[in-house]
Amino acid sequence: VVRRPARHSGRVTTLSPTPRSTVRRGKERARTEREELYAVLDAVLVCHLAVVLDGRPLVLPTGFGRDGDTLYLHGSTGAASLRTATAAPVCVAVTELDGIVYARSVFHHSVNYRSAVVHGMAHPVTDDEQKLHGLRVLTEHLAPGSWDYCRPPDRRELAATTVLALDLAEASVKIRGGPPVDDDEDVADDTRWAGVLPLARTWGTPEPCPQLGPHHTAPPPHLTTRTHP
Amino acid sequence: VVRRPARHSGRVTTLSPTPRSTVRRGKERARTEREELYAVLDAVLVCHLAVVLDGRPLVLPTGFGRDGDTLYLHGSTGAASLRTATAAPVCVAVTELDGIVYARSVFHHSVNYRSAVVHGMAHPVTDDEQKLHGLRVLTEHLAPGSWDYCRPPDRRELAATTVLALDLAEASVKIRGGPPVDDDEDVADDTRWAGVLPLARTWGTPEPCPQLGPHHTAPPPHLTTRTHP
Repeated sequence: VVRRPARHSGRVTTLSPTPRSTVRRGKERARTEREELYAVLDAVLVCHLAVVLDGRPLVLPTGFGRDGDTLYLHGSTGAASLRTATAAPVCVAVTELDGIVYARSVFHHSVNYRSAVVHGMAHPVTDDEQKLHGLRVLTEHLAPGSWDYCRPPDRRELAATTVLALDLAEASVKIRGGPPVDDDEDVADDTRWAGVLPLARTWGTPEPCPQLGPHHTAPPPHLTTRTHP
Repeated sequence: VVRRPARHSGRVTTLSPTPRSTVRRGKERARTEREELYAVLDAVLVCHLAVVLDGRPLVLPTGFGRDGDTLYLHGSTGAASLRTATAAPVCVAVTELDGIVYARSVFHHSVNYRSAVVHGMAHPVTDDEQKLHGLRVLTEHLAPGSWDYCRPPDRRELAATTVLALDLAEASVKIRGGPPVDDDEDVADDTRWAGVLPLARTWGTPEPCPQLGPHHTAPPPHLTTRTHP
């Protein structure tokens, strides 16, 4: 039985673990607040979408975006993975690495990270207006400000794009932060350095397209003011 | 029929696409050199491991490392995903984002990335010596220099760790780089900025474990000299 939180009630703020979405390993890293799920999903740029194809697993990096309790997934109408994912069970994972945990022992080496795993059925968005909405969500996730700035999709482009919607009813969140957790003897021994090497994503200097005309002297503000995430 | 390159011959340097590993979408982004597969796998810190569990897809972030044509996957003996992945078909994806491609049109927005997808059967490494070798490969992938510096795994820790080995026979590589590719009319129109916003991982300042003794005034060289990757 898959328990689902009442949606759009504005009151359900905790995740309701199902057998599939219950965190079994590293329970102390599991988070149960829906806001934490949203935060992780919104912070990671690309997801990994898994489907079953001919009885075998297939996982591919995929663009996505979130609006409320809906995850939109993006792809070409020709992609086998997305055809397979249509009205079929999928699993989506997003992961952001925040650092390498250097412990005193090899065994306690770890990573600091934020991750979310979503289970559900992905459904194609077929209505043109809803599809445009899904594409806006996807575009704004990847490139905030681009939707209003750029030429919108025309009829042909819209038809060539698959947008899948996945309900965020069944999901789990795991977050690890902080220093290494070593065995007491190794800490007492105190012969080895231990700590965390933080890892961050940073934006570089925008690289203008070589085909831009000479009057484009600077990128637009929605790009220059971008901070991650 | 799964074609497999002759292994350890030192001569097979190209990937041999099988039906599963043949890149169908974005063929111009597909790479066929085995060295490029190695480079992508070695550059990405964490993989996404997909298995089929009860007929449904499951994908989780997982530590890994590569030695020659063997990918080692890491986890706890208690993890359901790794139990499922043992002697079963798995799919592993690694993805590194290099930038956001801001096109003139929403439709041609994209990302610059390096990705690899590996298909195969994952087999548990049971021999203690081979398991230690696999753990060394996994550790050195995540934290180069840590294996020799840190306390090695003891018998109990070794028993509590699952190491899976996956042959790199069936794999595909996709890489996108460079500026946006817009429609001619949008380029000619020249009313919108287009280009790439580069994205990079950067290491921060090491954060010492609060339990370190006062004589640990600096992290060891294998940490301070780390560059990515």
